[in-house]
Order: sequence, then structure tokens, then C-alpha cells
Amino acid sequence: MGCLDDGRFGAELENGVRIGCAEVGLEEEGNNGAIEDAVKVLLQGLGEDINREGLRKTPLRVSKALREGTRGYKQKVKDIVQGALFPEAGLDNRVGHAGGAGGLVIVRDLDLFSYCESCLLPFQVKCHVGYVSSGERVVGLSKLSRVADVFAKRLQEPQHLADEVCSALHQGIKPAGVAVVLQCTHIHFPNIESIFLESNHQAWVKILVSSGSGVFENKNADAWADFFSLLKFRGINRDKIHFRGSSEPCWCPSQSSLSAKVSSKIEPANPVMVTAVASIIKSLGEDPLRKELIGTPSRFVKWLMNFENSNIDMKLNGFLCGGKDSLNANEEDNLNNKKICSELNIPFWSQCEHHLLPFHGVVHIGYLIFDGFNPIGKSLLQSIVHFYGFKLQVQERLTRQIAETISPLLGGHVIVVVEASHTCMISRGIEKFGSSTATIAVLGRFSTDLAARASFLQSIPSPTSSGEQ
Amino acid sequence: MGCLDDGRFGAELENGVRIGCAEVGLEEEGNNGAIEDAVKVLLQGLGEDINREGLRKTPLRVSKALREGTRGYKQKVKDIVQGALFPEAGLDNRVGHAGGAGGLVIVRDLDLFSYCESCLLPFQVKCHVGYVSSGERVVGLSKLSRVADVFAKRLQEPQHLADEVCSALHQGIKPAGVAVVLQCTHIHFPNIESIFLESNHQAWVKILVSSGSGVFENKNADAWADFFSLLKFRGINRDKIHFRGSSEPCWCPSQSSLSAKVSSKIEPANPVMVTAVASIIKSLGEDPLRKELIGTPSRFVKWLMNFENSNIDMKLNGFLCGGKDSLNANEEDNLNNKKICSELNIPFWSQCEHHLLPFHGVVHIGYLIFDGFNPIGKSLLQSIVHFYGFKLQVQERLTRQIAETISPLLGGHVIVVVEASHTCMISRGIEKFGSSTATIAVLGRFSTDLAARASFLQSIPSPTSSGEQ
Repeated sequence: MGCLDDGRFGAELENGVRIGCAEVGLEEEGNNGAIEDAVKVLLQGLGEDINREGLRKTPLRVSKALREGTRGYKQKVKDIVQGALFPEAGLDNRVGHAGGAGGLVIVRDLDLFSYCESCLLPFQVKCHVGYVSSGERVVGLSKLSRVADVFAKRLQEPQHLADEVCSALHQGIKPAGVAVVLQCTHIHFPNIESIFLESNHQAWVKILVSSGSGVFENKNADAWADFFSLLKFRGINRDKIHFRGSSEPCWCPSQSSLSAKVSSKIEPANPVMVTAVASIIKSLGEDPLRKELIGTPSRFVKWLMNFENSNIDMKLNGFLCGGKDSLNANEEDNLNNKKICSELNIPFWSQCEHHLLPFHGVVHIGYLIFDGFNPIGKSLLQSIVHFYGFKLQVQERLTRQIAETISPLLGGHVIVVVEASHTCMISRGIEKFGSSTATIAVLGRFSTDLAARASFLQSIPSPTSSGEQ
Repeated sequence: MGCLDDGRFGAELENGVRIGCAEVGLEEEGNNGAIEDAVKVLLQGLGEDINREGLRKTPLRVSKALREGTRGYKQKVKDIVQGALFPEAGLDNRVGHAGGAGGLVIVRDLDLFSYCESCLLPFQVKCHVGYVSSGERVVGLSKLSRVADVFAKRLQEPQHLADEVCSALHQGIKPAGVAVVLQCTHIHFPNIESIFLESNHQAWVKILVSSGSGVFENKNADAWADFFSLLKFRGINRDKIHFRGSSEPCWCPSQSSLSAKVSSKIEPANPVMVTAVASIIKSLGEDPLRKELIGTPSRFVKWLMNFENSNIDMKLNGFLCGGKDSLNANEEDNLNNKKICSELNIPFWSQCEHHLLPFHGVVHIGYLIFDGFNPIGKSLLQSIVHFYGFKLQVQERLTRQIAETISPLLGGHVIVVVEASHTCMISRGIEKFGSSTATIAVLGRFSTDLAARASFLQSIPSPTSSGEQ
């Protein structure tokens, strides 16, 4: 098995472009080395041991994910579209418009991801793209997706992405017009300092942008009416859409007023780490001095430092129940007098230590309490969840650490369920949009009593309303 | 840009496996040649001109799509899982189960596709996979997806696929147990002969299968209860699930009783085409004499012949209105007395001529009629849609041909919208699950009157209830 098995590479062969593998291999490896070194600097800046098992290959993984996620810099639209333009009859335009002469073609709901040029975090894109044919010629449908992907796989800003896809398709297909609508979703981490001030923190920032050429050039053109009619039921509000040339403030949460206010209070980003991030941007083929990118390394480092490794342990033993983590016979007898209490949908934010990419979701906690016993407050549980979230993590460990910490506080019988969406399942080769991961820890009675476990698990609400998009 | 930019190939590098590009390239090209020759035989068997522009590269495209879709034959699970097993602390099992010791991990909603070993059409898979950890060791989450993909990318049957994924993960991770649940969806073409007999033809055949090892070996095991609790709201009915060892009749519609009954009446498949399909199966690395595959070439050819190129034209001119396709002045004046009539959601089935893969969806037809005028029947429109569907097609052409044919019957003012899901957008490199394509043809008044167009387009119901899954 090798490179020829890849669909994308295959597409290039199909279009008559082939690059020697060996040569590219050497070049890539050279650049990967520079990125890997920079990632090591970042890990050290976070206070991590770069030789720890889970982190040992993290520089390699981050480097590969970033290369994969920005491979669009090395792709050419011409290579993709050429050879995929097909002659197709149309109608005499006195009769009407169809097929290769004036027929409108729309491909809807293409899932893409891109990297935010402001903060380097991936953002998700639901892409709808169409064109009005001209010259008795249509383009293979998959090429609309492939071309959009070329520009998505770069450091981007939504409006710029829409404009680039639109212009490239217009040049490549030479149709009567091209229309692009993008629904973009950017993860929005709360600031660790202000996390308890923002009770209604929104986990996502969303923006709707569009770009049009030819018959779609004017945002009030008739062609847009047909286009939007066929995007019905996709949650697109035409009044809220941004068009080419609109000058809106940056959508990225790292540049929002709250973040700026908070970050102005804290010390400036570690300059060694900032330099390392700038070198990564350069290795990807970008100019770190491009005006949109100048502040990016510093913003990324400030965000990353939320996950600094702290040696502070949670000293909670004895807080409530005095560190019970095993059961004695008397206690067992009393278990039947207890009932299940639960805290559901506690939001959490964390960072995957294998890929330095966010994962995010909700924690559900169940425990057994005596009738009449006053359970501990939700805010303490939230604090514990945040404490273990804001680190380099894996979901399995996060789940265990929360369970171990709350167990002595809650009498030893606890169940913890963590449901999360992992950016690393999207913004790398596997691109599994919509997948989600659930992990469970069961202690005491919950590890043996199926009915208790089932009763708690049944009380968990639909994941679509609890942290996923 | 080259092979190193691919995430999947990157994953192999990450796991320390590398195969010389040049060598693989030659081998692949040899096999591709054999598949291409076989595809040419199939196209000629369909009565097509293999030098026609849209078909010229079809053998190459089909060959690449098939190689891509069956690359799993050349992948090894060991290469994927090795290097992605991480040490992770667990709990003393007297206290409970969490992390690397007894913690349950589930990855839900992985979109995959596979090729049906009975008929060679791709089928979609929604995969849910989990394991209970053991030995203070967890596996990188993406590897669950990658391993499932290795077995999906082969000629498969759902239960066998679930069993293979389960066994491979069990051997690779050595956990306390592995659980796999697959929701599989197979396109179900109506037989062209019986299309008007099946008024409630279901466009999809669905099956729910599962496989378990270790603590999931017994289908009534407690571990399954936790697993299913976390798959709530995914339309999974535990009572309808198939478990390993259940002996159900083949799910593939090509082997269903109706298809068998109909096909028994028609002549046997063209032996030259059957031999060509058998040679394709062999080139992919499969044994065409494996018992599940023996009848596959013949079934595929019988299905393919539904799309035989016929020289019969639709002789409908004069049927109703006498071939009007242009308007005169008097007619223009009368247009305001007309109202929009529509036939929505006429199902269609077709075959993409670029990839020999199905596309399927609904056609919406609108036209202007005089008040009191009796519109032509839905069944005639359905016949026209089927006539143009059952060919090698592109959606743009299908739309135009339907519009051109019905226009003279309906007075020259027609709008045709075709909404479709293309298998070729899923079962190749781009894997855009959930995407859909809309095309429009507008004739007469509909090509100039935005309000008439908008009024019709607004009447089209949600696409999620009209042909997509």
C-alpha cells in the first residue's frame, strides 16, 4: 500500500499531475523537524516532561496534523479542475436555462475544517457551493468539494475563505457565476480566570459568510434567491449573512473584547514560545509577518498557557466525608437506604495531549446519598471538573481523575460519564465529523450494581443538546 | 505536495511502516490497467461509446475508486494500533473501574462506507465502537476509527464486518472486551421491470448488527447495557439487533426474493461482462471463487444492464399540446391567467457515468396551467423521470432532458429541480457523507419570472424527508 491508494493523490494523477515521492519526502521531513522542535519548546513552556510516554510522539503528531491541515498551500486549483470539465448540452437561452447553458448546480452540506489565522485553532465549516453553467460545460461535482478544501486547508478567516473559493472556481470553471455560503463554527474556550463569571458561556462562535461572482456578484441578484431557496431548512438566516467586502470585527474569540480585557491583566506571553509558534507558521509556508498573523503566535501561546502543568494537587480529602474510599460491612448494609443524586451536563474544556488540539463536552456525575443528606454543591463539582480539564489530558484520565477526587467527598459510590467531541477526530486525516466519545468511571456500588448504573445512565439527556453542535 | 501530505499515509509513517512509493506505484498501475480494461468491456456491454467525452476517463476513475474503496486488503491492524497504545493508570478493581483498568470507552457515530460483497455497490455504515480497558493501557481514539476503516474498505457483509473489526481490535488492544455496533444502509434500486408495481418502494435496506468479545462476548452481558445506554437517541432498537452467529438471510437487495423472481424471467447475464467483473474482483486482491462472491459478477452485471444505452427516444411530441417550445405574443398575454401546478418528490434512480456509481433522489416539477385545465397525470411524469434515470447519466443532463421532454407536454413554462445523493461523493477519496446536490432547469416563464420560480421553490418540502437518509 502506498501513496497511490489515496483518493486525493489519485485525483491528482487523474489530472495529470505527479510529483516524485522521494523528493517531496525529503523536503517534508526537513520541515517536520523544524515544527517538531518548536512543539517541544511549547511542551516545555507548559512545564511538561517531553519524554513522558503520552507526549513522546506529540511533536511528530502535531507536525503531521498541521501539515495535513494546511496542505492547501501546496495545491493548485488548476490541477484539480483541469480534466474534470465535461461538455454538456444546454438549452437555447430564448427557451430557458438548463444543463451546460445556464443550469444552476448546487452542492450542499460539505463538511470541511480550516485553521483560524487568528489563534491557530481548527474551525468547522459547513460549505454550500454552486454555479450557473456557461459555454456548454459542467464540472465534476466532487471538484467543487476538492477546490473548497484546497482553501480550507490553510490558515484562514471565514470571509476570506469564501472569497478565495469563489474566485478560484470562477477562474477554473469559467461559468456565468459562482456562489459560496459557509457556516463556520469556532470553539470558544472560556478564560480560565473568568470561567466562573460567565455563567452562560457559549461554547461555540458561529458566523455565516458568502461570496458571489458573475450573476451572483450582486448580493441582491435573482440568482441568490434560487440558491437560498435550495438551502432551506439548514438554519441559514439570509439577513444575518456576511457578504464580500463587509467590514466586520474579527470573529475569533481570541480577539473578542472579554478575552482582550482579561489578557491585558496577565503577563505577556513567553517570548521563546512565541518565537516557536512563529517558526511553525513559517514552516507551514505562511509569512508570520502577514498583518493578520502578526499577533497570532502571542494569542496562541496565551491560550495554550491555560493548560500549563501545575504541581498544585487538589487538596480536598477530608473536605466533606473524610477520605473514605473503601467500604466496610456496615456501610454495605446501609446502601439500600441511599438514593441516586446527579449533576448532569457540567461543561468542560480540555486539550488532547497527543495532538495539542481541544476537546470539549460535558461531564455527568452520579452518586448515592442518604435520604435527607445535603449533597455538595454543583459549584464545587464544576471547580473539580475545570481543574482537571485545564491540563494536557486524555479523556480516559480526565474521567478517572474526576471520579477519584469526588469519590471521598461523596461517600465512595460514584459514577462519572464524560461525553466529548475531539477536534483531533476532525482536523486530521480521519476527518470524522459528528463523532463523539464517551468514557465512564464507576466506583463503589456503581461498579457492581447494574440497576443503579442503568438508572443513572438513563437520566443523561440527549447528547445533541449537551455540548455537541 | 505528495504522498506525505495524506493523513492516512502519515499515520503509517507514524507507526513506523513505510513502503517504497515507486515500487507500489508500478504494481498498482499494473492492476489498474486490468481493471480499466474490464470497465471498458462493461461500458461496451452497455452499448456505450467508450470514447465519448464523459466516458473516456471512466475506466480510470472506476479503477481508482475501487482501489481506494478496497485498500483495506493491503492494510494491517498491527501497523495502525502499534505505537498508539498509551500507559494509563486505572483504579484498584476493589474500588471501581476507570481509566486504564476497566474504564469503558466508546466512540460513536463514525461514518464509514464499504462495498457489498453480494452486488459490489457501496453501502454506508454508522459505526459505534468501544472497549473496556485492561492492563493500564488505552488506545488512541482515532485508531478505533482507523481499524474499523481497514475492514470497511473491503468487499463486505455487515455481520462479517462487525466481527472482523471486533476481533482485530481485541487482538490489537488486548482489552477486557470490545463491542461493535454497525448501522448499515444499502441503496435499493427498484427493478426496472417492476418499478410501477412497487408503489411503496423503499429506497434503502437497513440492518443493525453487533459483535462483542471478552466482557461483551455474551449478548446479555452487563457491559452491553452500559454501551447501549450511551447510544441512546441514535435510533437503535436493541431488540432488532443481530449478534455474531445469527443466521439471517442475506441483506443485499440483489438477493431478495422479488429481485430473484424478476431476474429469473430475464435472460442470463452477458458472459463476457461477467468474466470482466470477476477479473476486477481478482485484481482487487479477492478470490472470485470465495463462496460469497461466486454469484456477485452475475448479479452486478444484471443490475448494471438496467442502465443499458437504448436508442429508443421518448416519442411524446404532440402527445398533449403539440410540441410548443416557444411562445408567441398572444400566449404571453394569457400567462397571468395561469397558475403554478406541481408534482413534488418523484423518486428517481440513476447511475453516474463518471464513476459507474448510483445516484438517487427526487425530482420536483412545476408548470403553469390555465385555470380549469386538467394537468397531465403523475404517472406519465414518473415514466419520463424513470426513462431518463435508467441510463449512464450526469445530474445536469438528467435535469435538462426531463425539462425538455415535459416542456412541450405542459405548455412550455416548466421548472425542474433534481435533488440527489451521489454515491461517488461518499465512496471515494472525498468521503463527503451527508452532502447533496441540487440542479435546476427553467423554461419559458420560469426562466424570467423570479416570483414564479420562488413560489415553486418554496413549495419544495425539506430534503431530509424526500430521498436522503
